Amino acid sequence: MINKSFAEITHPIEDELSKFNELFKHSLKSKVTLVELVTRYILKQKGKKIRPILVLLSSDLCGGISERSYRGATLVELLHTATLVHDDVVDNAETRRNFPSINAVWKNKIAVLMGDYLLARGLMLAVDGNDFDFLRVITNTVKRMSEGELLQISKTRKLDIDEETYFRIISDKTASLLSTCCEIGARASTNDENKITAMKGFGENLGIAFQIRDDILDFIGTKNIFGKPLGADIKEKKITLPLIYALKNAPKDESIKIINLLKSKERKTKVDVVIKFVKMYEGIEYSEKVALEYSKAALSKLEQFQTSESRLSLESLVSFVVERKN
Amino acid sequence: MINKSFAEITHPIEDELSKFNELFKHSLKSKVTLVELVTRYILKQKGKKIRPILVLLSSDLCGGISERSYRGATLVELLHTATLVHDDVVDNAETRRNFPSINAVWKNKIAVLMGDYLLARGLMLAVDGNDFDFLRVITNTVKRMSEGELLQISKTRKLDIDEETYFRIISDKTASLLSTCCEIGARASTNDENKITAMKGFGENLGIAFQIRDDILDFIGTKNIFGKPLGADIKEKKITLPLIYALKNAPKDESIKIINLLKSKERKTKVDVVIKFVKMYEGIEYSEKVALEYSKAALSKLEQFQTSESRLSLESLVSFVVERKN
Repeated sequence: MINKSFAEITHPIEDELSKFNELFKHSLKSKVTLVELVTRYILKQKGKKIRPILVLLSSDLCGGISERSYRGATLVELLHTATLVHDDVVDNAETRRNFPSINAVWKNKIAVLMGDYLLARGLMLAVDGNDFDFLRVITNTVKRMSEGELLQISKTRKLDIDEETYFRIISDKTASLLSTCCEIGARASTNDENKITAMKGFGENLGIAFQIRDDILDFIGTKNIFGKPLGADIKEKKITLPLIYALKNAPKDESIKIINLLKSKERKTKVDVVIKFVKMYEGIEYSEKVALEYSKAALSKLEQFQTSESRLSLESLVSFVVERKN
Repeated sequence: MINKSFAEITHPIEDELSKFNELFKHSLKSKVTLVELVTRYILKQKGKKIRPILVLLSSDLCGGISERSYRGATLVELLHTATLVHDDVVDNAETRRNFPSINAVWKNKIAVLMGDYLLARGLMLAVDGNDFDFLRVITNTVKRMSEGELLQISKTRKLDIDEETYFRIISDKTASLLSTCCEIGARASTNDENKITAMKGFGENLGIAFQIRDDILDFIGTKNIFGKPLGADIKEKKITLPLIYALKNAPKDESIKIINLLKSKERKTKVDVVIKFVKMYEGIEYSEKVALEYSKAALSKLEQFQTSESRLSLESLVSFVVERKN
């Protein structure tokens, strides 16, 4: 795999990213003062912008960045922001990217409405640009993301989750949007269905690797200013791949003990017991191996494209995702 | 004005409404058990279905009900249901149509995700039917509805609301969707921009009359199993037309007293004081007069259409809306 810094990855689209940032800022303008206030707050919290980067790099790879690519990038970032705002209500999160969350500052009611507003603004961009193909893709993604989260919630309650369900959940709640970014980026610059399918598959595999890495970091990450605290998933009874594997791999009586711990409120203070269990029964190694497989599958989708700066960046993004420490 | 019972109003589209109900039920199907559970719960709470009725009657009036009309009706009802589910989170409501609200039964997190899911399903219907014109209208409506509610929240906090702001809020949060119902119904059966504009205007005026009536009922309605309890808006510091007028019409010192009461927590136990004030300074009569003006404006938009059963029903719906007791 190729290792590049994040700045190197975005280097080929540096100017285009600046233009995107302007458009994104502009797309958040509103005559309602409260909306302006909340959006300015959102703009201060600079994320990595992985999703618009994927759109722009995919467009570049498939024929070149166009006006449609910018609209696509803005659309996905608006949708992503909307889901973050709603997710913080869903998770009752107090902070997001080291800032107090919207619901923490303005209460749930404003967070719910702001999420709806941001989603609508994104869709309106596509409508105004006559990007019917984007709308087709994005509405299905909104459905999959909410359905994936709802599936996770219901399975979490019952502590009933196997590998198959896990992959269904992460494919819907995370990979679907990354896949959509790459698909929209491709559609913005080509009609070649082979290329579009390849980019869609690239995003899907990247997304799954991304989420597995995220789930691994819940066990081995260090709490830092950007990441979530260690064991956050355990506290919420979210059963992810490292734990699913460890539960299957460990002697039955030990697994039962862990399940009982997860069912009790004690799990909140005994996160370290679960982490130790997962490490002992190779949940981390297994998950890293699986993430690597998905990242290889992602890379293989790029093989049909000629070598170019944007292809190299997309390849490096894969390494970045599966090797990140937070 | 023509007075018909609700059953008489819907009589010309009775069969079509049954077909709509089937489609609506079908549109809620999901492979995720939890989603099915929540949607079955939603389906049990039969509302009046005013919005799909408006779509179907408008289509009928403009040339006849088609497959597109049914999709439009299902789309608006899905959007309406999504906003109700989100509104209950926004308002922290415990009940909806005499049933415990989704957030009360399943908590906020599921209500937020279910709202997103329902909206996405609605948009997907339009995407699958290639109804790009519907998407153009509906995405703008989603934006207006959320922006209208956010404007109301920010103005409510500061108790800073005049008639102009009031009309801006109710036009965005309520009238926009009723207007959209009529516009979509018209678009489903005609390309005649005059007819479409007339129906859009009909819905807008009807919607404003509808919301004013709703706001009047907060002062004069009786708590019943379907309606909200008397004075609910006052408790939430929501300043609506009857109160805006009374505050302007009353002697200044009395208005200041009421404003101070509204600012204090006492307003929750002294709802009757505010109601008496509004009645004494003719807030009800004034608002009824204004609602009547809007309902006449709505009726005037129908004049260009030949008399027909569906035109009569739409006219009766106007009377129904401004004269309803809950």
